Amino acid sequence: MSSASRPVPFLKGHGTENDFVIVPDHEGLLDIPPAAVARLCDRRAGIGGDGLLRVVRSAAIEEGRALADTAEWFMDYRNADGGVAEMCGNGVRVFARYLLRAGLVKEGLVPVATRAGLRRVHLTADGDPTVEMGRARLPGGSGETITVTVGDRVRPGRQVDMGNPHAVVFVDDLEDAGPLTEPPAVAPASAYPNGVNVEFVVDRGPAHVAMRVHERGSGETRSCGTGACAVMVATARRDGRTPAPGTPLRYTVDLPGGSLVITEDVDGEITMTGPAEIVAEGVLDADWWGRAAVR
Amino acid sequence: MSSASRPVPFLKGHGTENDFVIVPDHEGLLDIPPAAVARLCDRRAGIGGDGLLRVVRSAAIEEGRALADTAEWFMDYRNADGGVAEMCGNGVRVFARYLLRAGLVKEGLVPVATRAGLRRVHLTADGDPTVEMGRARLPGGSGETITVTVGDRVRPGRQVDMGNPHAVVFVDDLEDAGPLTEPPAVAPASAYPNGVNVEFVVDRGPAHVAMRVHERGSGETRSCGTGACAVMVATARRDGRTPAPGTPLRYTVDLPGGSLVITEDVDGEITMTGPAEIVAEGVLDADWWGRAAVR
Repeated sequence: MSSASRPVPFLKGHGTENDFVIVPDHEGLLDIPPAAVARLCDRRAGIGGDGLLRVVRSAAIEEGRALADTAEWFMDYRNADGGVAEMCGNGVRVFARYLLRAGLVKEGLVPVATRAGLRRVHLTADGDPTVEMGRARLPGGSGETITVTVGDRVRPGRQVDMGNPHAVVFVDDLEDAGPLTEPPAVAPASAYPNGVNVEFVVDRGPAHVAMRVHERGSGETRSCGTGACAVMVATARRDGRTPAPGTPLRYTVDLPGGSLVITEDVDGEITMTGPAEIVAEGVLDADWWGRAAVR
Repeated sequence: MSSASRPVPFLKGHGTENDFVIVPDHEGLLDIPPAAVARLCDRRAGIGGDGLLRVVRSAAIEEGRALADTAEWFMDYRNADGGVAEMCGNGVRVFARYLLRAGLVKEGLVPVATRAGLRRVHLTADGDPTVEMGRARLPGGSGETITVTVGDRVRPGRQVDMGNPHAVVFVDDLEDAGPLTEPPAVAPASAYPNGVNVEFVVDRGPAHVAMRVHERGSGETRSCGTGACAVMVATARRDGRTPAPGTPLRYTVDLPGGSLVITEDVDGEITMTGPAEIVAEGVLDADWWGRAAVR
């Protein structure tokens, strides 16, 4: 079926001002080429968003079939430039909020299939969703094994993988981290064959930090959920803290668009709790979409 | 009626990437306080736009009643910060496109009431709308009677009024005009008691210029219709050109978001022709709007 032949529904939502165009496409009938994703995410010529969340039944998309028995819904996440991405922590909360709002799931523990594997979301009608984010991997251990360069400033950083790749850099002043209008240069390049999200972090208090983030393909954003998790783990390891049985570590991470609470339990399982708002819903103009989809 | 008590419809549209949240409120029942306008125009926490166009019957709004016999529809234009504004040249094309799309007017000459008076739009289903923009006033004549300061660079400028106030500055290089992240300082302040939109202009060829614009209340935008008209008139006067009977002056003005064609006839009447696109339509989430409207 041509993508221009029927009205295309959409919603707009955000979590800590990491914002998304949500496109319900339950049966996987829509072809949304990268240029059309970019047009949809264009903040002036389109709807505008840091990325696109296509909502597809796991059984209806090749990448979701292996998880279809466990998770009915697959989050087909694209960056604002149209590139495919594995996961987005704020996105999966907004995705789950959409599922509940549309009556497709009930309150409780909702499994969501993503390119980074299964993610479960604790959903209530009123409270902030909590997402099980899986475990962090620390390819460089807890040390500083990479460098991040902004302008002529080179800083050491920590390598964290949350299903997607992160570089975490502690700084004295967030403003001083630079304008972040260009992707920071991360070395060695071999550490990040698929690009990297870069986080700059300052301490705010005990188990409380603030951060800025540059997301590959999207530029500096107001928030990045997996980035906040990577920052929590890098901060805890820097602090020499590890979770004890029955006593998860718990950090508050402030981002430009709001705050997230991140926990890590003794098994390394990470959860993230934060807001997920639906702003509006509607349909794309058929003429506009017809032009966007072929551009 | 409370603004939170019923679904609030909206559309998103743009003209040369000057983009708008359009709120149909035909009977003038909605109260949209400045903070809610700002929330709606927030590009991450809301829908996102350079401004808001509320569509109201002229008879249903105090400021429209005097024009109600001539123009059925009033364009209640607000800047992205929530402030009331007189007129927006790209906005009125998008506004008229909405009226045609919604079946509220027919193709042809459509009168629109604005705070700057009556504007007529030549509308066809397929072509670019042409707006009659009225006459320019040149409070300083055709000379350079003001200065515009960006950073430590002071440049002479020309004062043009298109129903809203403009300062036009010719430069050698648009990039060199500065980052425009802050409002340029315009002197003397007495020339602009209600603030000012500032245009920076370079020559591109015969009767062809390119510009950047800083709009009061919105920052640098991809386009500004009245700004393009002010630029055309300031350029023509600088060039020593005035319209002859039957031979209107015709300039092409390139903006970051697209191109506009501006004409001026022997009576000083200015028209502007350019694209006007509707991207999508829908309804605001009731919970989100309830929070936005009281914030």
